[in-house]
Amino acid sequence: MKQPLTIIKVGGNIIDDDVKLKKVLHAFAAVNGYKILIHGGGKLATQLAADLNIPQQIVDGRRITDEATLKIVTMVYAGLINKKIVASLNAFNNPAIGLTGADANAIKAHKRTHATIDFGYVGDVDEVNSAFFTSLLQQNLSIVVAPITQDVQGQLLNTNADTIAQEIAKALSALFDVHLIYSFEKKGVLKDINDENSVIPLLDAKAYQSLKNENLIFAGMIPKLDNAFTAIAAGVNKVIIGDGVSLAELLDGTSGTTIVKS
Amino acid sequence: MKQPLTIIKVGGNIIDDDVKLKKVLHAFAAVNGYKILIHGGGKLATQLAADLNIPQQIVDGRRITDEATLKIVTMVYAGLINKKIVASLNAFNNPAIGLTGADANAIKAHKRTHATIDFGYVGDVDEVNSAFFTSLLQQNLSIVVAPITQDVQGQLLNTNADTIAQEIAKALSALFDVHLIYSFEKKGVLKDINDENSVIPLLDAKAYQSLKNENLIFAGMIPKLDNAFTAIAAGVNKVIIGDGVSLAELLDGTSGTTIVKS
Repeated sequence: MKQPLTIIKVGGNIIDDDVKLKKVLHAFAAVNGYKILIHGGGKLATQLAADLNIPQQIVDGRRITDEATLKIVTMVYAGLINKKIVASLNAFNNPAIGLTGADANAIKAHKRTHATIDFGYVGDVDEVNSAFFTSLLQQNLSIVVAPITQDVQGQLLNTNADTIAQEIAKALSALFDVHLIYSFEKKGVLKDINDENSVIPLLDAKAYQSLKNENLIFAGMIPKLDNAFTAIAAGVNKVIIGDGVSLAELLDGTSGTTIVKS
Repeated sequence: MKQPLTIIKVGGNIIDDDVKLKKVLHAFAAVNGYKILIHGGGKLATQLAADLNIPQQIVDGRRITDEATLKIVTMVYAGLINKKIVASLNAFNNPAIGLTGADANAIKAHKRTHATIDFGYVGDVDEVNSAFFTSLLQQNLSIVVAPITQDVQGQLLNTNADTIAQEIAKALSALFDVHLIYSFEKKGVLKDINDENSVIPLLDAKAYQSLKNENLIFAGMIPKLDNAFTAIAAGVNKVIIGDGVSLAELLDGTSGTTIVKS
């Protein structure tokens, strides 16, 4: 039987809020067994760029990672945020190690190519080094991943944290019984975007499709849910979407939306 | 018989010079066997503090690490410099992993206490996690260490890179035949500070003492040499001081100053 592995993606709204972050890390430290946390960036990188008068280019609603911006995200994601989380987990008696995709070639990527937009130093994931992740987990270390990867030429690349979480979950689902949690600012997938208590507890591909057909899924949720169903289709046991502060409840199904195979 | 382990401390003059850094990393990648690189900070952190208008307090010639400065060194050392070195080594087909002392509790430290000066968030090393370093080395990973440590309460601490190199070398000398290289801007310990060709090839404690008595050792070298002799006394096989660009020559004794037991 495969050992359980909990993978949680923690987004900007938590990273930016010290009190909320502490709560999520406390809940994470309390989860038994193998664990990986992937963090996003939050507003800190944007703030640092503003403080340094480095203009941020947005094309089609997406940030372009030029050389100066790559330096900033490397400092903020791999340095400041990653080590803050590692240090907090260690202090909760939950030994942790921080990684980028560059470390030990943990996540290989390539620079994104696009017909019309040059996104700059943005990476799309090619391969996750499952053996290395496993070796760290087996040393009873929780792994904290910053959303920076590397190509074969040694170029660091800014990479979407949701995608990294999905890729790690898929790669490790061959070896572990993976539960992937996307922690975000809502309690789960809502039937009514204005009603925090309208969480849909269980969602399979068929039910998702009919909700989409009826326009009952908030547009902003669609990429996240598509991501979740891709992970499920690739062997991830469960994907759970909800507020990371209630991590224990997300894992036992009493909070959040659990995405399951049809 | 113990396996050889090469540990190199690379200082600011190399970190600040992209061409020189590439040369040192190329030489490092070419060394056979187990390897650890410890890097300092260079001028990047000072520059970033200036760009952000964060005043740097210097007391008795030593920088005080206040909270804002700790954030800066965490970003620059653990983020920017560490990942740049890791990515370069990977690209040289020398798989590397970057660590701070916080990661996997690799280096435990405590906040420095001093009778009259509060150095702020500065750490003195208590313990190196030899088992963890060894497990990474045995996976054929070179280890790249940023000079940030952590105390038991989860407080990150700015820590002298020369000292970290010495502490890692001492701890691992029980398991490996350790060669510790301090790379700096000179070709070695000079008999005449104005003559780059006056390198003393071999130095033992007795010879060092008589050179000190005759005031023939440049004052700035004394802490580094005291550090080197402490490492030797604690079981490190050899300490070599010289220019890291000539790493192969430093290791085979044809360049630099080799510090040996009497």
